[in-house]
Amino acid sequence: MIESINLDEKFQQIREHWSPKIAGQVNDTAIKLVKFKGDFVWHHHDHEDEMFLVVKGRFTMRLRDRDLQINEGEFVIIPRGVEHCPVAPEEVQVMLIEPSSTLNTGNIRNERTLDSLGRV
Amino acid sequence: MIESINLDEKFQQIREHWSPKIAGQVNDTAIKLVKFKGDFVWHHHDHEDEMFLVVKGRFTMRLRDRDLQINEGEFVIIPRGVEHCPVAPEEVQVMLIEPSSTLNTGNIRNERTLDSLGRV
Repeated sequence: MIESINLDEKFQQIREHWSPKIAGQVNDTAIKLVKFKGDFVWHHHDHEDEMFLVVKGRFTMRLRDRDLQINEGEFVIIPRGVEHCPVAPEEVQVMLIEPSSTLNTGNIRNERTLDSLGRV
Repeated sequence: MIESINLDEKFQQIREHWSPKIAGQVNDTAIKLVKFKGDFVWHHHDHEDEMFLVVKGRFTMRLRDRDLQINEGEFVIIPRGVEHCPVAPEEVQVMLIEPSSTLNTGNIRNERTLDSLGRV
């Protein structure tokens, strides 16, 4: 069934932070929605680029050489292999565009690693 | 150079309607920005799904069995093979998420076909 997906409605269903939910699939690419709040973990993805589009709020993407502020209506693409750590002082709503197979914590495995994602 | 991309700034640089510009690349997926106004052409893509995210405004996605209204903050994914025709009574700003290789007019070739896209 082809339908329009309302981002605001989908984000209202997301309670947990740092737990991406799949909102759609375009070819091999997943559209994931996630709320960030607080600090995540430094990691990288060996084989996958990752795009972060801020739908509401703002966050800081820490890179090893500098910090990038990503505001509402902005996106950043982190190429494969580049270490990064998202930090969100306040809750932020983010659309992730990346392969379905991308692990949220990349090369790191810890209590925040999610081996499978729910849908929203 | 990793940098944050501001959608509003990028859309301000786009003058023509129906002429997608590449704003980023995530793995094999291109992030294209386009302004629609008026009627496009009925077409489909044999091998590629296509996602339309409305950044500003609204448009109608005509399908053969019904019309879908896609409002600001909403997206629709048109699976490969499905005929569609976007129609925008007023100008609308859209982010397209699809393979870099996707031809704007799909299986149709006419005066609106763009064989290569510029960057924005």
